[in-house]
Amino acid sequence: MGQAKIRLCLDQPLGAGQSVQLTEAQAHYLFGVMREGVGTQVFLFNGTDGEWLAEVTEAGKRKGAMACREQTRPQSAPPDLWLMFAPVKKARTDFIVEKAVELGVARLQPVLTDYTNSERFRCDKAEAHIREAAEQCGALSLPEVVETTPLSRLLSGWGPARPILWADESEAGTATTLASFPKGPAAILIGPEGGFSEAERARLRASPFVHPVALGPRILRAETAALAAITLWQTHLGDWR
Amino acid sequence: MGQAKIRLCLDQPLGAGQSVQLTEAQAHYLFGVMREGVGTQVFLFNGTDGEWLAEVTEAGKRKGAMACREQTRPQSAPPDLWLMFAPVKKARTDFIVEKAVELGVARLQPVLTDYTNSERFRCDKAEAHIREAAEQCGALSLPEVVETTPLSRLLSGWGPARPILWADESEAGTATTLASFPKGPAAILIGPEGGFSEAERARLRASPFVHPVALGPRILRAETAALAAITLWQTHLGDWR
Repeated sequence: MGQAKIRLCLDQPLGAGQSVQLTEAQAHYLFGVMREGVGTQVFLFNGTDGEWLAEVTEAGKRKGAMACREQTRPQSAPPDLWLMFAPVKKARTDFIVEKAVELGVARLQPVLTDYTNSERFRCDKAEAHIREAAEQCGALSLPEVVETTPLSRLLSGWGPARPILWADESEAGTATTLASFPKGPAAILIGPEGGFSEAERARLRASPFVHPVALGPRILRAETAALAAITLWQTHLGDWR
Repeated sequence: MGQAKIRLCLDQPLGAGQSVQLTEAQAHYLFGVMREGVGTQVFLFNGTDGEWLAEVTEAGKRKGAMACREQTRPQSAPPDLWLMFAPVKKARTDFIVEKAVELGVARLQPVLTDYTNSERFRCDKAEAHIREAAEQCGALSLPEVVETTPLSRLLSGWGPARPILWADESEAGTATTLASFPKGPAAILIGPEGGFSEAERARLRASPFVHPVALGPRILRAETAALAAITLWQTHLGDWR
């Protein structure tokens, strides 16, 4: 058996001696694809109870059970960072979701902007991607996904408690913005491929809680800007320090 | 007509009054897909002569010609950063190439490592992706792509003139490493999904020109690590400052 390698995300409570059921998909993956069986050790997490080493106690074609043996890592909260992004084409939106989990965010907030030009954002699909990415990257918490909301409505209810790092190609001063960006809860705002409209830009510039940040001299695609902005915030103020 | 929007990368000299020929693919894109024609203004660049505003003088189904009107941006050299990466699965390797152009590197160096597990890296395909990405992101220079080389051979010939920023999940100190990383030519080294072997790690740790850098507490996929490391170097020492 040796060291457990596989990590699975479940929707059930985890604790000492706790028995848990696998979903049909998980049983298929573990026993069909990976050829594991009774006795295999697996890491389990559910986003709230930390990470547990568990052992397969029952292995069927479409079902299976495991027993939690010991907690391997206590639950930790992710840095309180929200990613607000305008959905782009499907593959690139999937990419934003996957990378946000790896790099570490607490909430994914799709936003409708004047130039958002994309198919509907599916929360259920995003949640499946989040679980896969979390299994893969060793994350203990799962970013929350909230419904797509118009940017104007979000900004109307916004306050200074969560300043916004606004990735804006026409602004200058990467290092300066980050050095003066407040500690604590934060949000990153990334526009669609076409950027923000003049009306949106005027409103963002006039908001005291919005901090524009430049991301280099080239024009980044939306998903690249999202990754770069999360990386910079994490290094300065998040859990990469 | 209005403002030129389309950017095309060519393999021909550009200069005042210079006439240039479109490739069949470019003619198809410009006249077939985009429905442009004689008189349309386009930005041209070739990686060495800066960016030029040009006007279509001949539009055919499979060919076309343009005349350079005026230089809109002088040629600039990209920051002298090499990205050394172990090729991963095709879609993710394509992603590394595209993002390296957007974020800004001077050379792409695929490396074979002990755990590299991937199909062959195609320089010609990478070059096509580089041109597309450069057209899209407004870059003036095209990263050079060199042949895949074993890591051990690269390290044998390496010297202190180009220190290596080594993305290594087991090392600590993102900010510290970056603050002390030398100015000037640099290379980033990213491993394959399985990481580096113990022998490779020992050799890298023993090299005085290799600077390990941590990229947060989660395990990043290869392409995520590449993007994050380029972002951090660019912000500290490259053209994002």
